[in-house]
Amino acid sequence: MASVLITGSSRGLGLELVKQMLLLPSTTIGTIYATSRTASPPEPLSRLIASSNNRIKHVQLDVTDPANVTAAADQVSRLSEGKGLDILINNAGTQSERNGRTSAMSLSDLEFTMRINVTGVHLVTSAFLPLLKVSKTKSSQSKKIVNITSTLGSITWSHKSAIASVPAYKISKAALNMLTVQYASELSAQNFTVFAISPGWLQTDLGGGRYAHLRPEVGAREVVRIVLEATPEKDNGVFRDICVKGFGGTYSGVNPPW
Amino acid sequence: MASVLITGSSRGLGLELVKQMLLLPSTTIGTIYATSRTASPPEPLSRLIASSNNRIKHVQLDVTDPANVTAAADQVSRLSEGKGLDILINNAGTQSERNGRTSAMSLSDLEFTMRINVTGVHLVTSAFLPLLKVSKTKSSQSKKIVNITSTLGSITWSHKSAIASVPAYKISKAALNMLTVQYASELSAQNFTVFAISPGWLQTDLGGGRYAHLRPEVGAREVVRIVLEATPEKDNGVFRDICVKGFGGTYSGVNPPW
Repeated sequence: MASVLITGSSRGLGLELVKQMLLLPSTTIGTIYATSRTASPPEPLSRLIASSNNRIKHVQLDVTDPANVTAAADQVSRLSEGKGLDILINNAGTQSERNGRTSAMSLSDLEFTMRINVTGVHLVTSAFLPLLKVSKTKSSQSKKIVNITSTLGSITWSHKSAIASVPAYKISKAALNMLTVQYASELSAQNFTVFAISPGWLQTDLGGGRYAHLRPEVGAREVVRIVLEATPEKDNGVFRDICVKGFGGTYSGVNPPW
Repeated sequence: MASVLITGSSRGLGLELVKQMLLLPSTTIGTIYATSRTASPPEPLSRLIASSNNRIKHVQLDVTDPANVTAAADQVSRLSEGKGLDILINNAGTQSERNGRTSAMSLSDLEFTMRINVTGVHLVTSAFLPLLKVSKTKSSQSKKIVNITSTLGSITWSHKSAIASVPAYKISKAALNMLTVQYASELSAQNFTVFAISPGWLQTDLGGGRYAHLRPEVGAREVVRIVLEATPEKDNGVFRDICVKGFGGTYSGVNPPW
């Protein structure tokens, strides 16, 4: 059974990923490390933990704080009792609410978004990499690092995304995509699958509530399916998308261009 | 006659761009604003200015300092006597010397590289945009914003670039590419051509000296040619590459994938 750590688990997609992972047999996914910035897990994550028969463990993690990220990795190392970590899902992310024209993008908006969506993912990945390396992942499986990106981060598709006035978010996701392929390249000979996945336009706080296409559980279910099915040969260093019917074929499951 | 501003003109590609622009007839390129971080232009830029018959004007500019960027735009506004600016070349950039594995990339390396190569380009572009908007660029020409990127910023080509251990630089150039297409989209209805161009692997301090493929003047000549030939229809929001024979067809002139 594999262990998984999901950042940003207190709400939105992260919370749904924890729920969906918990629905899997414990022989597939054993321990679920659910992180939030808070010292204690907030509702409704705390209730989920209480009902999880000790499968979900809360880890306090602020992806912008290097010392805190190191401490969180130490905590998971202790909790795993030497077994390490099999799957890391970098889900924590932000999207500024002050959107608009690119030329009006504030310095603080750009830097804050980059710090969470890019630098934060790098800090977490580098800190947890030793735990991923020590894990005795089943030989039929690979170790996995999964970065939650967005098709808004596709430069090739930018003409399709022009209506979404979130320049800092788009820039951060393009940068995250490059970070992803860099890690994929570094770890390709070590039975790793490192990939980026767009979970769809979800009805979450980040996604924009009820105007968005999909209920969070629909995106989360697809992400979990794709994470479990991912193989190094097929998925290392790639950009995955979900497969959901309707919405004019938006979610075809075909890998988006960078 | 058009005016051009080139950031990072004290050495490397920027200095060569100034030289090449000066070789053009003054009816093609009139005033050349050459920026450097120093209060006075360092050698050999100062000698070039002295020989330029007042066509080159030095502007002090630190792309990481918002107040300084604003002051530089004010200075160019005064120097232009209301005529504004026709072409902005965002050339200033950095590449860390402490290279290596992605997982070993330091926080300071990543953040410093992003601050100059991405945030700096945004600060300069947004500050000079009013000057570009007021310019009476000839109707046969468009206003131009040219961002010096690198094929190392192509996510699609990352497998070809795996040997270059410069993860922060690659991430910053992918982010810069997304910034470029965002500006291209915003300004597409206003007779602008905004594009990214890779100048080749040049024998500059940034490029890595004599191990690199091309003398800086070769890359600069190509960049100047492509800038002058660029049209909104063909080049707005695109990734341009230079065309130079040899080197196994590396510089084919075909637009690289993002």
